[in-house]
Amino acid sequence: MTQQSRRQFGLSASNRAPYYAWEPEGPTVKTDIPGPQAKAAIAELDEVFDTRSLNMLTDYQKSSGNYIADPDGNVLLDVYAQIASIPIGYNNPALLKAAQGDDMINGLINRPALGNFPPSDWADVLKTGILKVAPKGLDQVFTAMAGSDANETAYKAAFMWRRQHERGGAHVEFTADEMASAMDNKLPSGQTELSIMSFKTGFHGRLFGSLSTTRSKPIHKLDIPAFDWPQATFPQLKYPLDAHAAENAAAEQAALAEVEHLITTYPAPPCAVIVEPIQSEGGDNHASPAFFRGLRALTRKHNVLLIVDEVQTGVGATGKFWAHDHWDLQDPPDMVTFSKKAQTAGYYFGNPELRPNKPYRQFNTWMGDPARALLFRAIVGEIERLDLVRNTARVGDYLYGKLEALASKYPGQFANLRGKGMGTFIAFDNPRRDEFLARAKKFGVNIGGSGQSAVRLRPMLIFQEHHADILLEALEKIAKSW
Amino acid sequence: MTQQSRRQFGLSASNRAPYYAWEPEGPTVKTDIPGPQAKAAIAELDEVFDTRSLNMLTDYQKSSGNYIADPDGNVLLDVYAQIASIPIGYNNPALLKAAQGDDMINGLINRPALGNFPPSDWADVLKTGILKVAPKGLDQVFTAMAGSDANETAYKAAFMWRRQHERGGAHVEFTADEMASAMDNKLPSGQTELSIMSFKTGFHGRLFGSLSTTRSKPIHKLDIPAFDWPQATFPQLKYPLDAHAAENAAAEQAALAEVEHLITTYPAPPCAVIVEPIQSEGGDNHASPAFFRGLRALTRKHNVLLIVDEVQTGVGATGKFWAHDHWDLQDPPDMVTFSKKAQTAGYYFGNPELRPNKPYRQFNTWMGDPARALLFRAIVGEIERLDLVRNTARVGDYLYGKLEALASKYPGQFANLRGKGMGTFIAFDNPRRDEFLARAKKFGVNIGGSGQSAVRLRPMLIFQEHHADILLEALEKIAKSW
Repeated sequence: MTQQSRRQFGLSASNRAPYYAWEPEGPTVKTDIPGPQAKAAIAELDEVFDTRSLNMLTDYQKSSGNYIADPDGNVLLDVYAQIASIPIGYNNPALLKAAQGDDMINGLINRPALGNFPPSDWADVLKTGILKVAPKGLDQVFTAMAGSDANETAYKAAFMWRRQHERGGAHVEFTADEMASAMDNKLPSGQTELSIMSFKTGFHGRLFGSLSTTRSKPIHKLDIPAFDWPQATFPQLKYPLDAHAAENAAAEQAALAEVEHLITTYPAPPCAVIVEPIQSEGGDNHASPAFFRGLRALTRKHNVLLIVDEVQTGVGATGKFWAHDHWDLQDPPDMVTFSKKAQTAGYYFGNPELRPNKPYRQFNTWMGDPARALLFRAIVGEIERLDLVRNTARVGDYLYGKLEALASKYPGQFANLRGKGMGTFIAFDNPRRDEFLARAKKFGVNIGGSGQSAVRLRPMLIFQEHHADILLEALEKIAKSW
Repeated sequence: MTQQSRRQFGLSASNRAPYYAWEPEGPTVKTDIPGPQAKAAIAELDEVFDTRSLNMLTDYQKSSGNYIADPDGNVLLDVYAQIASIPIGYNNPALLKAAQGDDMINGLINRPALGNFPPSDWADVLKTGILKVAPKGLDQVFTAMAGSDANETAYKAAFMWRRQHERGGAHVEFTADEMASAMDNKLPSGQTELSIMSFKTGFHGRLFGSLSTTRSKPIHKLDIPAFDWPQATFPQLKYPLDAHAAENAAAEQAALAEVEHLITTYPAPPCAVIVEPIQSEGGDNHASPAFFRGLRALTRKHNVLLIVDEVQTGVGATGKFWAHDHWDLQDPPDMVTFSKKAQTAGYYFGNPELRPNKPYRQFNTWMGDPARALLFRAIVGEIERLDLVRNTARVGDYLYGKLEALASKYPGQFANLRGKGMGTFIAFDNPRRDEFLARAKKFGVNIGGSGQSAVRLRPMLIFQEHHADILLEALEKIAKSW
């Protein structure tokens, strides 16, 4: 964007300079998407790889900053960002530098079994990277590969922790019955099943344990065996919030009452509750800080662990580094899981009791990827250098204000606008959502959906006011085009 | 190793030249392991990361080829290789070159959601890498992150495939009851539970679904909920094989009969059987090609899928690229899973019906890691260039012969020697196994164990006769030192 056009949009050039000079000034749409080049490549790919979920074949070499490119020369403003996974832009120069570093190359070509043969600088890599941004009260980390196994290893820690309590402590040895029944996938005699509780419309992954807590859509779950674990209703808030304050507070109270009821009565009592700060795949469902403080109090009261799933909300997008920082908790969660923008995955914990009583109970060959951990360290460095969490909070407020105006101007097109004060983690409902997303591409923007009808915005942390203006202009064009 | 010492060991220098000139000539043991430097670093690491499973703190920069180094200047011949995960040596120059390439850097810093936004060259990356070495009869791939999720996504494919058959085909839509019950983690009315069958002492991962099929040790399974899935006895062969031919054949027949009994009578019938070509974590348990051909015939007869778990056996170590190539199957497995030496993970399949009937049923955000897929392509290139699978077959035969001699000389120390004709994938039992492994370090070799008493050899594919001689010398020193 030129100085002139920036002025035209009413932006102050001084504090709104682009972070990176190499970005295009705006989108370019040359062909239908997919265009002829993409179509040919997709047909070739489909011979060996399922392409039915393909959204846009991407030319990553030509993508830069907030812009995603395709093989036909189309360049879109990307506010989907690989399902919220790109933190600081395509081909970020700081990441390029990190990728060329000796330690990165070493981490890439000499992949360690981290539990057995950690690199001698592993403590330093963790402390200057992943742990530098650890949530308050949590100072230890178990590294993993992706969001699903981050959650599942956290569940395993919860089960082991609860059983250890039942046994009477870390020093109590396993009985012969416990060892024999475990080998037979059975409970030892006299023991009751335990469970992990999650919320309706929540999403926590697609492997067998995590999928048992995922409750977003049938297509994720059909035909896959699942554990008989409880689900509580997530408060379904009405918008605008200030017009429905009493009703929403009542919905949250009812949800908390249901949580307590399930904790105290479910045949397989939960040893942990997992919750997303904003239910992301399930449709961008929010709840108030008071609800989450209530959930922390309830879980503490009943000796149930609280796992906060920050796989999609973490790493700055809500205008705080962790979305649960918005809750102002005095008593931190027991575990916080992360992935996506971290480019690596795992869970944080603070309580030493969440280290199981014996080694090899929480273990696997790789336990993460040092190359990806190094990349996260570089991402953290760039977030700090450019103060990107604060940027996202400010740009989010700017964007939200303009979206409110659009919502007034085009009733029904930007329904249930939500995410105020949550950085750029903003969503709205559109009655013809899928068509809305398809048209967005024609107007130069790549946007994703969630739940049944939500348009979810997931810009990168380097999304600035001038990007917001381009997005808003495209959104208005779509609304006008119906 | 010098020309002179190579001659001294009776090696022909001409065809036994080291693949890489930068390797040390042999191990160096300067201190106890861990030495003072390592001890200090481990104490620091333990503050934030569980170190109780730590085997050896590693200096990867100083490691090279078959040799692993630590911060105290110790350099060991490594025949454990990050739990069988290092294929072509530490700091391999071909991988260094690949890591510095533009496409690798691009794959590292622009991580795609592969199911939605695959790179435009993804078909090419797959075809020139992962798919170039696809097992016979299997021409499609689902990419994943690690062995556990490779197996679990294969299980999901099996469940969806079987239910599709029950429904009457891909065109039959899901019923309202199916969709509602799935959201409630329940079966639709009238449906029977299905299962995945595995073998006793087998290992298939540590997440909730894969752990339900893992039957190696209680420590992996204690306190973690598991599905009620069947386990069949894996034949327990007696050694030497030629002295127990009839008995072993009977054990294999009995195991197959048990498999058929479980398939036809288990309350939750298996839709798939998963098996390792050599049970690796469970103690290096072998079975004959005839057993596996029988298993293929039985699963085919009963319309049960056969999943071959090549996470540890794959990529050359048995003297064939895939261990199941030893079976001489006319009818290929339905799925083959891979990880470890591939540095990436996933499963191969051939049958188009193993693509579920709708998109987003087999999906996740990352679906693997392009950087790791590129690394595997470079590994495949180096394996081909140096003919490393053939090398491993030849060196394995050499090593096995020398181990037979050691076993005769030191009765009981190298018991149940196994892996003849299986490349360097060789193991033996030692009554004081853990002490054996500890002493190996003092004599300059890093070796791993498996099961209760097995010493498992997992050299890299660049392990040559002169490395075998160093290993054999160390093994004899240990045997003598009791």
